[in-house]
Amino acid sequence: MRTASRALLSSDEAAAVAAGLPAWRFTPDGRTLERLVDCGSFAEAIAFVGRVALLAEAVGHEPELDVRGPIVRVSLSTRAAGGVTSLDADLADWIERVAP
Amino acid sequence: MRTASRALLSSDEAAAVAAGLPAWRFTPDGRTLERLVDCGSFAEAIAFVGRVALLAEAVGHEPELDVRGPIVRVSLSTRAAGGVTSLDADLADWIERVAP
Repeated sequence: MRTASRALLSSDEAAAVAAGLPAWRFTPDGRTLERLVDCGSFAEAIAFVGRVALLAEAVGHEPELDVRGPIVRVSLSTRAAGGVTSLDADLADWIERVAP
Repeated sequence: MRTASRALLSSDEAAAVAAGLPAWRFTPDGRTLERLVDCGSFAEAIAFVGRVALLAEAVGHEPELDVRGPIVRVSLSTRAAGGVTSLDADLADWIERVAP
């Protein structure tokens, strides 16, 4: 499984991710990279979920997705590594390109 | 707003819903009707979310949807009424028809 070989981000790498993806934040335990995305409507939120899912499948990773009306929470973590890896940071970068 | 006129289910009505929709449960506070749906894969979970969203838009209601790998949690509640109404029970019934 490709995710198993991923290493957790170093603190320098995590700082670079935080700087490069200002809309994202690390959860207090540092194990998840997440973003709340306001899509404007429930219908647009569902469309965004579909776009995220296609990117996720393309890179072989599975974000957690929570839909609350127009808001989607995207949560990224690599279970096999016990936290945030480059796989998560790369997917966040891709998701950023399709976020409204 | 059509949901504003909905009344909370009576305890008899809630019991009927519980009996008629055995895969669903009321949360401990009684304010939400929810179901965990195992779709078998992340891709199928996303497809299911899309089907639920189409039904939800058709009836003018917005479920909360949480995707965790192959599992989707669907949570139904009518905010304007402060709990579960016939709108939620009806949508649960529709969702049941498209669940895997």
